[in-house]
Amino acid sequence: MKTRSIEQKVEVSFEYPVCFTEKLFALENPLFHKTIMRAGKTRRHKLLFVIDEGFAQFHPCLEQQILDYTKHYSSELELVSPPIFVLGGEETKNRPENWEKIYQAIDQYKICRHSFIVAIGGGAVLDMVGFACAIPHRGIRLIRVPTTVLSQNDSGVGVKNAVNGFAKKNFFGTFAPPFAVLNDSEFLTTLSARDWLSGVSEAVKVALLKDKDFFRYLQREVDAVTHRDLDVMEEIVFRCAALHLDHIRNGGDPFETNHARPLDFGHWSAHKLETLSQYKIRHGEAVACGIALDTYYSYLKGILSEEDCLEVLHLLHNLGFPLYYSQLESPEIFLGLREFQEHLGGILSITLLRGIGEALQVHEMDEEKIKESILFLRSWEQSLPKEVAQKDEVCN
Amino acid sequence: MKTRSIEQKVEVSFEYPVCFTEKLFALENPLFHKTIMRAGKTRRHKLLFVIDEGFAQFHPCLEQQILDYTKHYSSELELVSPPIFVLGGEETKNRPENWEKIYQAIDQYKICRHSFIVAIGGGAVLDMVGFACAIPHRGIRLIRVPTTVLSQNDSGVGVKNAVNGFAKKNFFGTFAPPFAVLNDSEFLTTLSARDWLSGVSEAVKVALLKDKDFFRYLQREVDAVTHRDLDVMEEIVFRCAALHLDHIRNGGDPFETNHARPLDFGHWSAHKLETLSQYKIRHGEAVACGIALDTYYSYLKGILSEEDCLEVLHLLHNLGFPLYYSQLESPEIFLGLREFQEHLGGILSITLLRGIGEALQVHEMDEEKIKESILFLRSWEQSLPKEVAQKDEVCN
Repeated sequence: MKTRSIEQKVEVSFEYPVCFTEKLFALENPLFHKTIMRAGKTRRHKLLFVIDEGFAQFHPCLEQQILDYTKHYSSELELVSPPIFVLGGEETKNRPENWEKIYQAIDQYKICRHSFIVAIGGGAVLDMVGFACAIPHRGIRLIRVPTTVLSQNDSGVGVKNAVNGFAKKNFFGTFAPPFAVLNDSEFLTTLSARDWLSGVSEAVKVALLKDKDFFRYLQREVDAVTHRDLDVMEEIVFRCAALHLDHIRNGGDPFETNHARPLDFGHWSAHKLETLSQYKIRHGEAVACGIALDTYYSYLKGILSEEDCLEVLHLLHNLGFPLYYSQLESPEIFLGLREFQEHLGGILSITLLRGIGEALQVHEMDEEKIKESILFLRSWEQSLPKEVAQKDEVCN
Repeated sequence: MKTRSIEQKVEVSFEYPVCFTEKLFALENPLFHKTIMRAGKTRRHKLLFVIDEGFAQFHPCLEQQILDYTKHYSSELELVSPPIFVLGGEETKNRPENWEKIYQAIDQYKICRHSFIVAIGGGAVLDMVGFACAIPHRGIRLIRVPTTVLSQNDSGVGVKNAVNGFAKKNFFGTFAPPFAVLNDSEFLTTLSARDWLSGVSEAVKVALLKDKDFFRYLQREVDAVTHRDLDVMEEIVFRCAALHLDHIRNGGDPFETNHARPLDFGHWSAHKLETLSQYKIRHGEAVACGIALDTYYSYLKGILSEEDCLEVLHLLHNLGFPLYYSQLESPEIFLGLREFQEHLGGILSITLLRGIGEALQVHEMDEEKIKESILFLRSWEQSLPKEVAQKDEVCN
């Protein structure tokens, strides 16, 4: 049996700026124009905007600002049509009409691989628009403009996109680095109290895994966060995003071909809490609870000191996160472990804590100890003084 | 306006073997098993086969061979279901039911990122199955088993996939390197005369651009090709594939983010010939004609010597390719240049010939000289002795 082989090796390099600014579409801010011009001065650059309609309601001047901005630079920027408005929130990823609308615009306005789609919205909208950009012509240039804490510091800076299918979250998607990510801190001022807070859990998470100093900073600034200090939130978003970007760049597995996802600390139960609550529990809230669970579990298994464990729980609690939900006691919570294992190709790999700023990968989980951790979280929450119930209303 | 920026850089490396063998699914050939085991011995590997139904008709034992082969290695390989059969040819890329059938199987059999889909078929089927694999779970491992000369030496070894949409060829697709490519030379023996020949035009093309020795080899082996000598065809497929792989690896732009596609010599008119003929002209035949056109044009523009030009035309003719089709005289042929330009982001970049084995990029084309070249090809074809009309029938 004669066989000849050639070992092919393909190396691809992606570069994109992640910028933190304010008043992104004010005429006096050159960042957006400068960002597009990185693509060269050879032609007018076609732009199509896709905007989260919920976000747009809180920013009624945004569309006019975009028109004025692109008009100002009209010799270089070509707005192909008025913005497309799409449903916000996770539901946008369930409805194919959202991404089909974008495909149609790509076809109609002859958007090519060298044109730009600018997506403005929260994590779900960025996921969906990112997917809608990734497939036509094998990928249109995407500029992400994240509008929530969670998308500015976490999902919006990464290399993934997704929509839902077959009743499964993120069933369809690709790895597709954006052309640029432009974060505007002013967009955070109109967030509801829950959305303002919920993205901070990813900052706590990445601090716990990688940066003890950042954890200390978060401890010091609890009051500033709960009192909506924008400067502090900008710093949190910046440091959290920087740690995420560093992980993607230097973690050795940007397109997740291996069996571990070390940044998914606390996420096996968090994903399940979200679905068991029909997404009434926000992703960031579920992550805070998942962190608390795996932190206490790390302590129970003798990996983490009691002192460190309590510091974590107190920080999350002081920020305002509930650390217990009744869904934790559903037997289905353990399916979260199975699904996590399945997603990683059959090999369970869970991140635990060895100390503040120090992660540890394990390949099995002790269900009895998980149950014990859940019972602890329930009694801990019951023993604490009741806070004023959080209101889900716009604060600014 | 305060702005902070982080320059993100993501480097991704893909490695895959491209193997040339015979009797791929015979029990005595360990290649397929060995290929899968590159993924590790940690678990039984799930496999789903998708097969071109036209090809399967000529290989009635294939399904049983696959069953026997996977049964033989059943402790390591898990066949999740009987093969899925799909329509072959370009039409498979027009009909969403083909890729939706694959999505359903991925969902039903819990195919994950670490499972395998094995696609067996010609270029269109590999394109379609590749697309169907690339989106669920952000990409399932794909093993391509190309069954035609064209897919073994060209499309099947690369990093692209596609389906059609909005009445446009390859409207949807991604860049997604396969896990492996396994070429079985025996599969070529059942090709029709036209399909046996048509893939050779890509070999002529890549020889012209990159490898004068290979061009001389093709000249020497014309008779062997036309008499269906399998050893010679294996050598042509191997050398052509190797040149393509080298271009993808070392060409500096594997995911085509730049404005040029230097390997697309002769392709601007070839794409148009295909569509103007409603795909009655095969891709390989259209490419042969497109090569002849741009070769003669190179001569007319004073870039290529007359001697080299005639060598190219004679080789293509002697292999049996028509060098003229009436569609060349349709005014729409020039739309091919515009579409090529549009696809490359507004900057025209066309590959011409400076010599045999030497390419040259130009950024404008002289329509009068193109017309003159077309007229020359018409009169050249008319002046030649008529060959026996090629029959589109199965030869073995």
